[in-house]
Amino acid sequence: MTKAITEEAVTGVYGNMFLKTICIADLGCSSGPNTFIVVTEVMKAVDKIRRKFGRQSSPEFQIYLNDLPGNDFNSIFRSLPRFREELKEELGSEFGQCFFTGVPGSFYSRLFPTESLHFVHSSYSLMWLSQVPKGVEMNKENIYLASTSPSSVIQAYYEQFQKDFSMFLKCRSEELVSGGRMVLTILGRKSDDPTSKECCYIWELLAMALKQMVYEGLIEQEKLYSFSIPQYTPCPFEVKAEVEKEGSFAINRIEASEINWAACGNKFNLPHSFNDDGYNVAKCMRSVAEPLLIDHFGESIIDKIFQKYGEILSDCMCKEETKFVNVTISMTKKERMDG
Amino acid sequence: MTKAITEEAVTGVYGNMFLKTICIADLGCSSGPNTFIVVTEVMKAVDKIRRKFGRQSSPEFQIYLNDLPGNDFNSIFRSLPRFREELKEELGSEFGQCFFTGVPGSFYSRLFPTESLHFVHSSYSLMWLSQVPKGVEMNKENIYLASTSPSSVIQAYYEQFQKDFSMFLKCRSEELVSGGRMVLTILGRKSDDPTSKECCYIWELLAMALKQMVYEGLIEQEKLYSFSIPQYTPCPFEVKAEVEKEGSFAINRIEASEINWAACGNKFNLPHSFNDDGYNVAKCMRSVAEPLLIDHFGESIIDKIFQKYGEILSDCMCKEETKFVNVTISMTKKERMDG
Repeated sequence: MTKAITEEAVTGVYGNMFLKTICIADLGCSSGPNTFIVVTEVMKAVDKIRRKFGRQSSPEFQIYLNDLPGNDFNSIFRSLPRFREELKEELGSEFGQCFFTGVPGSFYSRLFPTESLHFVHSSYSLMWLSQVPKGVEMNKENIYLASTSPSSVIQAYYEQFQKDFSMFLKCRSEELVSGGRMVLTILGRKSDDPTSKECCYIWELLAMALKQMVYEGLIEQEKLYSFSIPQYTPCPFEVKAEVEKEGSFAINRIEASEINWAACGNKFNLPHSFNDDGYNVAKCMRSVAEPLLIDHFGESIIDKIFQKYGEILSDCMCKEETKFVNVTISMTKKERMDG
Repeated sequence: MTKAITEEAVTGVYGNMFLKTICIADLGCSSGPNTFIVVTEVMKAVDKIRRKFGRQSSPEFQIYLNDLPGNDFNSIFRSLPRFREELKEELGSEFGQCFFTGVPGSFYSRLFPTESLHFVHSSYSLMWLSQVPKGVEMNKENIYLASTSPSSVIQAYYEQFQKDFSMFLKCRSEELVSGGRMVLTILGRKSDDPTSKECCYIWELLAMALKQMVYEGLIEQEKLYSFSIPQYTPCPFEVKAEVEKEGSFAINRIEASEINWAACGNKFNLPHSFNDDGYNVAKCMRSVAEPLLIDHFGESIIDKIFQKYGEILSDCMCKEETKFVNVTISMTKKERMDG
């Protein structure tokens, strides 16, 4: 489904402007086997539209790969020569030249010059907040929102999301040209309830693993109480509300879709998938949450945490169907009123 | 002197165009304490001219830091937050926003979209060839050009330089806007003779260290015979000739200047300079030649090589004054004839 939305968006930007160079940013590109998936999809979409419109010469591609300065850009850059060859094989020699650059920094700040981008994409990154919200101490044994979270904690998480996401929109609105497009996929929820199981259960099970380790004396209770996941999984309405409030973008489409936890291992292209889904999901979550956990609990007990988490996940996935929710939004940068 | 040339060039590009964003590339930026020296100099020059011309708002800066994919971009990116703070302290809050990106790849190929750059700088990188020239087997105990090098070897080195440098000029001419500027500093020579001492002696002394190790049985003779430094240190005339042949650039200035070997430690901002100049120069050369030597001779004898090299350098620097030659060229991209 995301592919269709991307193609539609690329048609919007490349079909309507005559571009010699199309500037594409992938925000939160990470490093590893998934890094080039998004940009490949976008480049293929451009090429498809070029053929459809019968345009002879391909545009050049300026590709900006962004993530935090701690991301392993070296490994991305070292895998580029091979990726280029694969791309050439797949898309042929007619395909335009691609120029890859790495852009280190938080996407909750400006990353690019004014009006320098045509297309922005971000996949599974914008649910991460810029920080753990202030005032969540009362969340105790919960590490994320849960049915037992006090309403003040729910409010604190939501406000942090609003603040961060509106800052994101403001920065991108300055960086995109008028008519430029943005497609975001965010881990979210369908329900209006921020503590709904579809977005919180995965973390509740991790909290359960951590609690067991408290009982076993491997983690201090206070350590667990002071740990929180800096994430917010919004529903489509909350995303829409921020976009409308910020005002620079027209929404083309917004949708929520479901993906089984069990598909997560495939989704994230894990190198060695095992038959045990619980183990695969634990591995997948590990790739996401490990740095946070090491930072707080130290490196020595990490294997144990994920072993327990894997067991709990296996057990739960046998008994019920468990799903993540993707919220995908496609929007167009409006013409500036002042210009 | 380079600072004056940079300022003159920046005046040319920023003074003559009204730029909201100035796009600057540093080619061969390396990683370490020197990485930001060049871009800082350019940004300061822009700011000086802005004040001189009484322009209120500063342009934004798009800074492209380029080096080969094996360069340590992670360490550059991780040092960026501190560099930004220092820059802000030095240049004040009036100063325009700076956007840093890393660009992995060889500057003997296209790195940037067509007509996307205003200013290109490269410092101590263009004497490196894209490869060891073919047909230099007869150079035997020499690892670079030397007075005993056969003329066919000298010719092979020169032809590789011509091929590489003209490819460099062609790529940059496509990437720079008309009126864009380029300032290059290349390790070179004043003499017309490519085997002149001013450019070759430093490598002859390294060859001497390697030869001693052959006598001591630490390196096989064949290993030494098959080792060559992929470098060419041109004279101003040779640089000028390639620029004129390629035809896209008008030369504003070309100069050769001398720098004492002993100043090399300071020049390269080595963290721990010692009183022994020979040792410092060996350290400086190590930062440059180590990867080549490890690749050919293996890691285990590297310390020994540079210990011997340091001794030989000390000895020689006591007896005579030894200098490197910088060739600096400043040029302007001409208007395209076809457009």
